[in-house]
Amino acid sequence: MLRLHTYFRSSAAYRVRIALNLKGLPYEAVPVHLLRDGGQHRRPEYASLNPAELVPTLEDHSQAITQSLAILEYLEETHPIPALLPTGSSERARVRALALTIACEIHPLNNLRVLKYLAGTLGIGDDQRNEWYRHWVKTGFTAFERQLTREPVPGRFCHGDSPTFADCCLVPQVFNARRLNCPLDDYPTLMRIDENCERMEAFQQAAPALQLDAD
Amino acid sequence: MLRLHTYFRSSAAYRVRIALNLKGLPYEAVPVHLLRDGGQHRRPEYASLNPAELVPTLEDHSQAITQSLAILEYLEETHPIPALLPTGSSERARVRALALTIACEIHPLNNLRVLKYLAGTLGIGDDQRNEWYRHWVKTGFTAFERQLTREPVPGRFCHGDSPTFADCCLVPQVFNARRLNCPLDDYPTLMRIDENCERMEAFQQAAPALQLDAD
Repeated sequence: MLRLHTYFRSSAAYRVRIALNLKGLPYEAVPVHLLRDGGQHRRPEYASLNPAELVPTLEDHSQAITQSLAILEYLEETHPIPALLPTGSSERARVRALALTIACEIHPLNNLRVLKYLAGTLGIGDDQRNEWYRHWVKTGFTAFERQLTREPVPGRFCHGDSPTFADCCLVPQVFNARRLNCPLDDYPTLMRIDENCERMEAFQQAAPALQLDAD
Repeated sequence: MLRLHTYFRSSAAYRVRIALNLKGLPYEAVPVHLLRDGGQHRRPEYASLNPAELVPTLEDHSQAITQSLAILEYLEETHPIPALLPTGSSERARVRALALTIACEIHPLNNLRVLKYLAGTLGIGDDQRNEWYRHWVKTGFTAFERQLTREPVPGRFCHGDSPTFADCCLVPQVFNARRLNCPLDDYPTLMRIDENCERMEAFQQAAPALQLDAD
């Protein structure tokens, strides 16, 4: 049985929950609350699984796998059907680049520990911090929208008619952007895809509000 | 012939230069200067190749591939020998997680456009900006060192006796950390591996100072 160390609001954990659901893989969810007890991710027993003290971590037998995109690749290799990557190398590169646009250009700048550093160490106030958040969403989503429309691949999702890594990364980032009231009118393709994803049970069941550890 | 749109100082481009050299793939380097002409990455002809307006971009025939880690995966799929990923899924996940620790936890926070936003929009001074830089290097390298020592894989590199994606990401980040005078004494494993990498011509030839566009 797979065990996923997860926090309901972590968008990196949300990506993996979607992928597990899309592949129909049952898993035990182990909640790691990032705010309670001074951050449960800092506990020694968790840090021994995940030395970066980040969620998620996937345990498969005795193996602890960290970093959400490494987990997605692992699931794709160990449970290839249904596939979350296309078959051709160029197409796989397109999907991975889309996923990395979220994972490297937006999310790292807007996660909890960065916002804490801005507020605590740099003394940046709420308004400027929210502006920072929206700025990186805007930068990343503008790139994402352009990537989708530059070489469009017809279909309901980022790459054709079945969801891929790109959709697993997109939906949690859109969810977060809505929470922070980011304007989303400039990304019609991205919004259409998000809506199509949200019609699927695999995406619905991965949503933060439905997790056992939701506040 | 492969064409790599590169900037000598970009650590994401540096990763790809290393991988191309390790695989013995000749390529034409097309310089994209991030500071000259208001940033050559913003030119329409470049933005049409790379909608995120970031370096690097790899052109292979008519295909433009963006995001350094997507390029590494593409090269691994299209030119599998010598391999830059191990064979087992668990081992591949370990290597990818190490690479992502650099690519998602350090580099996005310390790249040029983020430092510019801190200075320009938020008015953060030099000292606090350097502190910010060193903070994320410390956080990421601490995690990286622990990942290497938690489940050590004997050998000269991050994963055994041949270089992998993890080494391609590590060396450029260590180079940057040195440029910004980050203390590195706490990462003996990482330093030993960096030294072993720097003995290889593939790494040496990819160094910023040796690129045609170096200032």
